[in-house]
Amino acid sequence: MLETTIAAIRPADEAAMAAARELHGRLTKPAGSLGALEELSVRLAGLAGACPPPLPEPAAVAIFAGDHGVHAQGVSPWPQEVTAQMIGNFLAGGAVVNAFARQAGASVTVVDVGVATPLPTDPAVSDAAVSDAAVSDVAVSDAAVSDVAVSDAAVLDPAVPRLVVASVRRGTRDLTVTAALTRDEALAAVRTGIRIADELIDAGAGILLTGDMGIGNTTPAAVLIAAFTGADPLDATGRGTGVDDPTYAHKVAVVRAALARHTPDPADPLGVLAAVGGLEHAALAGLILGAAARRTPVLLDGVIAVSAALAAAAFAPAAVDAMVAGHRSAEPGATVALRHLGLDPLIDLGLRLGEGTGALLALPVVTGAVRVLHEVATFDSAGVAEK
Amino acid sequence: MLETTIAAIRPADEAAMAAARELHGRLTKPAGSLGALEELSVRLAGLAGACPPPLPEPAAVAIFAGDHGVHAQGVSPWPQEVTAQMIGNFLAGGAVVNAFARQAGASVTVVDVGVATPLPTDPAVSDAAVSDAAVSDVAVSDAAVSDVAVSDAAVLDPAVPRLVVASVRRGTRDLTVTAALTRDEALAAVRTGIRIADELIDAGAGILLTGDMGIGNTTPAAVLIAAFTGADPLDATGRGTGVDDPTYAHKVAVVRAALARHTPDPADPLGVLAAVGGLEHAALAGLILGAAARRTPVLLDGVIAVSAALAAAAFAPAAVDAMVAGHRSAEPGATVALRHLGLDPLIDLGLRLGEGTGALLALPVVTGAVRVLHEVATFDSAGVAEK
Repeated sequence: MLETTIAAIRPADEAAMAAARELHGRLTKPAGSLGALEELSVRLAGLAGACPPPLPEPAAVAIFAGDHGVHAQGVSPWPQEVTAQMIGNFLAGGAVVNAFARQAGASVTVVDVGVATPLPTDPAVSDAAVSDAAVSDVAVSDAAVSDVAVSDAAVLDPAVPRLVVASVRRGTRDLTVTAALTRDEALAAVRTGIRIADELIDAGAGILLTGDMGIGNTTPAAVLIAAFTGADPLDATGRGTGVDDPTYAHKVAVVRAALARHTPDPADPLGVLAAVGGLEHAALAGLILGAAARRTPVLLDGVIAVSAALAAAAFAPAAVDAMVAGHRSAEPGATVALRHLGLDPLIDLGLRLGEGTGALLALPVVTGAVRVLHEVATFDSAGVAEK
Repeated sequence: MLETTIAAIRPADEAAMAAARELHGRLTKPAGSLGALEELSVRLAGLAGACPPPLPEPAAVAIFAGDHGVHAQGVSPWPQEVTAQMIGNFLAGGAVVNAFARQAGASVTVVDVGVATPLPTDPAVSDAAVSDAAVSDVAVSDAAVSDVAVSDAAVLDPAVPRLVVASVRRGTRDLTVTAALTRDEALAAVRTGIRIADELIDAGAGILLTGDMGIGNTTPAAVLIAAFTGADPLDATGRGTGVDDPTYAHKVAVVRAALARHTPDPADPLGVLAAVGGLEHAALAGLILGAAARRTPVLLDGVIAVSAALAAAAFAPAAVDAMVAGHRSAEPGATVALRHLGLDPLIDLGLRLGEGTGALLALPVVTGAVRVLHEVATFDSAGVAEK
């Protein structure tokens, strides 16, 4: 399945890109006056193989949630239970991602790919649309996802956040001690990401947005970024949700030790994800590959997303053509990763929340960039003189 | 009327700002993780005098259009008729501002404050809601605006762009030769801006967005920015819609000569607007003052907007509390002006189109920042542990 997905990822369509550039020159605005939006719309035309490309609607956020064995090393001030508690908050509609998704009309799918502690049992969770209740520590088969058929309308309903349980194991192992995942476990998470992409696109989604939740997940993200880009751990590691100076120094040391222990090979992305990644990082890499294979844009959120995007690009370099960088996270590793991917973010407001919040803020920019190609009059049709 | 408006502008409410900061600390997200959105929401609480401040809905774009005597000096490659032709395009819904406004659900009001050539007579213009057909070269009385009563629903209808004719004169005089406007003419345009702000807010608008149209209008904007900030004309002047090197050098020389001829006094903003401004710049200053007096946020577009905002701040320094910088225009003078105002833009994508397009792209960020204070659960209410 992974191989099939990778094989389906093709480079951008140059003819559609040329057509979009030519159209931009005829629209009633000075040439180039929409700045980065023009090139963005050209890229999306290349991805779709059409000019104009389809409007990226409806939008679907997929939040992959997992826990991390490295949490035991004291890299985060938050208790691990917060991952599960925040899933409850997402399903109850109380998190920032929900507020932004409601505003944008985007659906929210929460995927448990490896939460360590029990999910909340309060009514908010049981009221949410749940696709599969079978939580398993060893569910590395493909059967764990989407056993329960859900209608397309329910999949993309912006009013009802949806839970998909596809737990590979209850959190990763501690990467300072051993590999975080087996290759099979990492592959299972990647496959879950691909399946979620397919499910959302089959239901009609025009764009996928990456979301994540996992206390401690900026530590594996930093290791992934250092592994794929060659950056020094000091440049790849940030303060996450806000650690103090001693904890930050410790976190950098943990990242450095992980690289020394595992010497991950960037030419073997599955091996890198298994050794030093997280289940949500692996699933996000799958989501990105799945979107690219379907020629559907995927709007990246913050540092977790871009660390996963590095893995996706290592699997399939042309997957970058499907990626749009939503925002520049305050985490320094995000900038390292974006530079490596050759992506310029649309929003740069110092966000470091994750969940998909930065991607959601950028969504109207993406939609607007495409809308221009659909709706703006030409000089000729509007009777406006050119210079 | 100007004096009354200025007198009504009060500083931000510190108690409401403190309440917003305190609320942010209790919401289910790490403290500070929403970056610039947190301080933005705090500023808007201070403006409204309430926590949470009202959602900035519905949004209303006001596009002030005018022409410029300095066009005769060859500062733009575009014919002056394009100003009137683009009004036709706005009213027909074919411009980029229309595409973005439809996406954002914002109404579009086009105000002719001084277009030089006849407005188009095609059906698009006559079909649009027109508030006052009386165009006059000398209409410096207040009677030129809103003589025709329009229902609140029509004022804010996002589906039907509206034309208000409130022409002070058919374009300014050439500021390289004489004062662009008399003080009375500049005052009439400022008053028009205040009236439009009042009309839109009376109709229910929760936020105003600045728009502008005027071939040649980046030249007076550069002179205004140099006059109010003391910046060198080379730093205040840009390439506008895209002038070549010789034209750019000539444009800088025109700006420098205008400053030498008029020696505008930044302590006399009406005098500055009259000597070197444009009618749309003066009207935008009025719109900003009108919004500030009504404690309603005004989302600034590009270089024309921020040059007008400098005038508004010179009239009433506390008006800055009502301003939100939508984006950083590619025009270098915009950055000079924003720095002088102490404002950080929300979007920075190299746009240089005007019309209100950059403000519209930023609108969801503003709405999202406020929405967080309305809709996000607290740690306590969501049962999420703190660090």
